[in-house]
Amino acid sequence: MSAESQKEAAAAEAAKLIHDGMVLGLGSGSTVEVLIDKFLPRFKLKIVAASRATQLALQARGFDCLFLDSPEKPELTIDGADRVDRDLNLIKGGGAALLGERVLAERSSRYVIIADSSKLTNRLGSDFPIPVEVEPIAYHNLASELDSMAITWKLRPCNCKNGPTVTDNGNWIVDVDASSYNGSVSELYKKLRTLTGVVEVGLFIGVADEALIGTSQGITRLTRSSST
Amino acid sequence: MSAESQKEAAAAEAAKLIHDGMVLGLGSGSTVEVLIDKFLPRFKLKIVAASRATQLALQARGFDCLFLDSPEKPELTIDGADRVDRDLNLIKGGGAALLGERVLAERSSRYVIIADSSKLTNRLGSDFPIPVEVEPIAYHNLASELDSMAITWKLRPCNCKNGPTVTDNGNWIVDVDASSYNGSVSELYKKLRTLTGVVEVGLFIGVADEALIGTSQGITRLTRSSST
Repeated sequence: MSAESQKEAAAAEAAKLIHDGMVLGLGSGSTVEVLIDKFLPRFKLKIVAASRATQLALQARGFDCLFLDSPEKPELTIDGADRVDRDLNLIKGGGAALLGERVLAERSSRYVIIADSSKLTNRLGSDFPIPVEVEPIAYHNLASELDSMAITWKLRPCNCKNGPTVTDNGNWIVDVDASSYNGSVSELYKKLRTLTGVVEVGLFIGVADEALIGTSQGITRLTRSSST
Repeated sequence: MSAESQKEAAAAEAAKLIHDGMVLGLGSGSTVEVLIDKFLPRFKLKIVAASRATQLALQARGFDCLFLDSPEKPELTIDGADRVDRDLNLIKGGGAALLGERVLAERSSRYVIIADSSKLTNRLGSDFPIPVEVEPIAYHNLASELDSMAITWKLRPCNCKNGPTVTDNGNWIVDVDASSYNGSVSELYKKLRTLTGVVEVGLFIGVADEALIGTSQGITRLTRSSST
């Protein structure tokens, strides 16, 4: 079963949670775009988008869409993830929308992840870096701090403009290599999050309520209560 | 003569205009980076950078560097360009730093372009789109305006984040296809520049004082007085 089919299966499963008239939050990424294309047209919804990418994708397909600056609280938010572990913790921010996605997750009664099986990992950070969103004025300071902690990192470049990738919020992304980090991810999250100038860290620990993962054997469902 | 050698020849020619103690402005792009790497280390300068990309490139090589928010006025600014025509008019903004580059050009006594021969064109817009920097809140309005003018355009995507390319100023880039536009570029500039939400247009008409173009036959020098 291809990654594309797995994404569609996960999106189909998530679509069962949607009902007409609800306020639905939408994160970003390729699986969310499958959900938009294949399953959203059948519903009448008020949609809040976590990113400019999702906002534009919705608008291009004729959906009305609210941005994060609206007061609506979603009953349900469906989002993708770059990595998901068995404890339902996530790496987010490959698409640089991590801050908007966390805002939406916090404002939602239920936050459900959809992904294909390539996103499942036994250990967060082992095979995907941790995106850290930083205010540009604090970049050199963050770099020094990470170096002094012996943490390997890279400013995310951009090939569509000269210089660094700029987020929807005007910030930069530093991708932290946690592959040789020995501590717990929640400890790493706390360390990174409080460094000066850091506005968001792409480790979502204990945030998701449920993950619907398309696999070649069907849907793997991870839920907060079932996770260890 | 390779493009790389042509860039180096242009940078070498521009380096003859630099002298110790001057305030030097630097634009962005690959030819400017050749100048930084190969020729700047021999000088003692006060450097003002037009973009975050150039600022970071300078800092990574150990140069002190001022950003555009400094009051210094460069005696000379050296910059690249995406296209240069025989009248010394330019397309700028392939690297999305067009606003910073125009600010620096205006603040400089002399503004000199360096480029390889692939950047020379007989007609601006015929083979490279015109970058237009727009405030995101005005994007849909700009899109409607361009459509109503029968102008073909494209929001510049980004492959390092989901959604549009974001400039150092938090704005988006709309690339306008002017290949079938029949009017003059200065007329096009004025039309685009006054559309609501547009903060900059990558047509630099009558801005450059000189261009030093590396070619397989040596340096082609265009100057404002010699241009028609």
